[in-house]
Amino acid sequence: MQHRNHRIVLARPLSGVPLAEDFRMQEAPIPEPGPGELLVRHVYLSLDPYQRSAIAGRHMGGRQPLGAGGMPMAETVGQVLRSRNPAYREGDYVRHFGGWQEYALSSGEHTEVLAKNRAPLSTWLGVLGMPGLTAWASMVELADVQPGQVVLVSAALGPVGSMVGQIAMQRGAVAVGIAGSDEKCAFVRELGFSACINYRSADFLGTLAAALPGGADIYHDNVGGQMLADAFTVLKNYGTVILCGLMERYNDPSRSKPLDLALPIVRRAVMKGLVVMDFEDRRAQFADFVAPRIADGRIRYREDRAIGIDATGAHFARLMRGENLGKSIVVLGDEPSFPSAPLQARYSTEKPRLKALLRGT
Amino acid sequence: MQHRNHRIVLARPLSGVPLAEDFRMQEAPIPEPGPGELLVRHVYLSLDPYQRSAIAGRHMGGRQPLGAGGMPMAETVGQVLRSRNPAYREGDYVRHFGGWQEYALSSGEHTEVLAKNRAPLSTWLGVLGMPGLTAWASMVELADVQPGQVVLVSAALGPVGSMVGQIAMQRGAVAVGIAGSDEKCAFVRELGFSACINYRSADFLGTLAAALPGGADIYHDNVGGQMLADAFTVLKNYGTVILCGLMERYNDPSRSKPLDLALPIVRRAVMKGLVVMDFEDRRAQFADFVAPRIADGRIRYREDRAIGIDATGAHFARLMRGENLGKSIVVLGDEPSFPSAPLQARYSTEKPRLKALLRGT
Repeated sequence: MQHRNHRIVLARPLSGVPLAEDFRMQEAPIPEPGPGELLVRHVYLSLDPYQRSAIAGRHMGGRQPLGAGGMPMAETVGQVLRSRNPAYREGDYVRHFGGWQEYALSSGEHTEVLAKNRAPLSTWLGVLGMPGLTAWASMVELADVQPGQVVLVSAALGPVGSMVGQIAMQRGAVAVGIAGSDEKCAFVRELGFSACINYRSADFLGTLAAALPGGADIYHDNVGGQMLADAFTVLKNYGTVILCGLMERYNDPSRSKPLDLALPIVRRAVMKGLVVMDFEDRRAQFADFVAPRIADGRIRYREDRAIGIDATGAHFARLMRGENLGKSIVVLGDEPSFPSAPLQARYSTEKPRLKALLRGT
Repeated sequence: MQHRNHRIVLARPLSGVPLAEDFRMQEAPIPEPGPGELLVRHVYLSLDPYQRSAIAGRHMGGRQPLGAGGMPMAETVGQVLRSRNPAYREGDYVRHFGGWQEYALSSGEHTEVLAKNRAPLSTWLGVLGMPGLTAWASMVELADVQPGQVVLVSAALGPVGSMVGQIAMQRGAVAVGIAGSDEKCAFVRELGFSACINYRSADFLGTLAAALPGGADIYHDNVGGQMLADAFTVLKNYGTVILCGLMERYNDPSRSKPLDLALPIVRRAVMKGLVVMDFEDRRAQFADFVAPRIADGRIRYREDRAIGIDATGAHFARLMRGENLGKSIVVLGDEPSFPSAPLQARYSTEKPRLKALLRGT
């Protein structure tokens, strides 16, 4: 075991699409847990597009951008090394907001002990984590997708998009994806999507229309901007649009294209804004649905991995260029192999603090 | 009875806010009804903001702008002078799409015999007409307003906005209006609205926030653009927005401000597009609710009248400058006084043709 913590901080304020050299590594002592705290050694670090927006101080409104020397926030999965909190035992694997670093303290807030036997540990950051819960909230809670409906989703190979399609298919719907390369689309089709259209291809709109001859009942939007306008060309009248992400603007909000309101009016669309933190109390129901389907292969996923904390900046830059093939994860430590004894997951549902955590520190 | 028809046509294609001199009067023979047709002498002509968009070829998508010499379409109320259609008798009062003229033929399509004893004849173009039905569709069908909820509506003195507030109040909700002058707001408050804010006043947003200390559950949007963005500042989380009109852009779409998608996401808003023609089959239910309330004064309205077909252009220009005080109507003939014998209204529900009619001819 090494005896220093390593963290990634901003070398300078971000501007536009991040570069690897926007970040630098810092060494620091491994902190000692105080009363009620626990020390976590991270195994996996989650990189997500919303982190770009959070670094810029734009995520969920009203905060300063992260300056040089600041550490981006992220969900992490790791093992409890020392615990001074009776709810956590040394050796437990937990998910918490640990940030871009190898070790972190937790007060227990939003710190969940993970059931080791249910699914691969890294999935608690992806298909079984916040991205998966986002897809669940979209398809089950907000859109209430029905058998036979047609669901269109952008960023379809990402952890949210791939789960939107797969949860829809598990409920008897048909899924059509949009992604940014033929390579991504090939994998999206492997997941069982009826079609996947590369939005960078010539005649994207024509191909999209051909893939949806009867139109889409539901469009799950991870992108905003022109992608949303394009989706309206194939949305059925009275169709549902779940407004979930704004990837189009995370790197550069000045390039953002807002919505022409005539589109939802003419389509009589129902549009619903989704914020995943509202669905914390659905985590157990969601995991009960998804975990067995991961175990038997009905739900599949792809991860885009980098190894080592020093790879984090470049891996985030890759994500924000849209080059990742699946859920972006940095592997920080040895991946454990688990016994099969069941472990009851515990859920934390304090929402106000979660909102602050999502904004970074 | 005069022996010539007079109609108003475009003197030149419209650009921006209409001027009286954009229109000219034309004389023409009074047409003879063919088999199945009826000849209607108009008493009232309805002017509505959507007509500006229809003239520009932008209403409900995909049509050429009306050129010089073209006659704008409008709903009219009039009396059947001659009928070669067995469903209509001479002397019946009807509502149909007669256009900006004194006489028009009807094939019977979308031509409704009006119950003379239920309400003043002109209300079939306003609070009992398409604007009222629009408000009904918004509050009853799409938003399903509940007792105790707070409803915010823009263009609150117009026939749609005033009915949104009054239907909401009849269902036990609280209504707050937004209008463009203190004079308009004074009348909006007379209708029973708890507050009305002049959006041209200094510190509009501060006054709006003060009028809605707990926020709005529902916002009915007749305007779009900056008005919608402003409404989001007082919308409750999980609030409903009915997207109904785009007055902001009817005169000049290049000035239009589209919607920043972050607003509905952060608010977890549910937004629903409304097209009134979808609710033709609710006309009877709607009239049964509204007509008795007009009769006993629970629902009130204000009309902005001009007299004579030659006043139509200037009156439309006044409407599109936002200077009208209530439902804009041109009175074209003697207003009848009715006997009290009940007359069964008949409803026509052919939708595809209605869509074409709305676009003008």
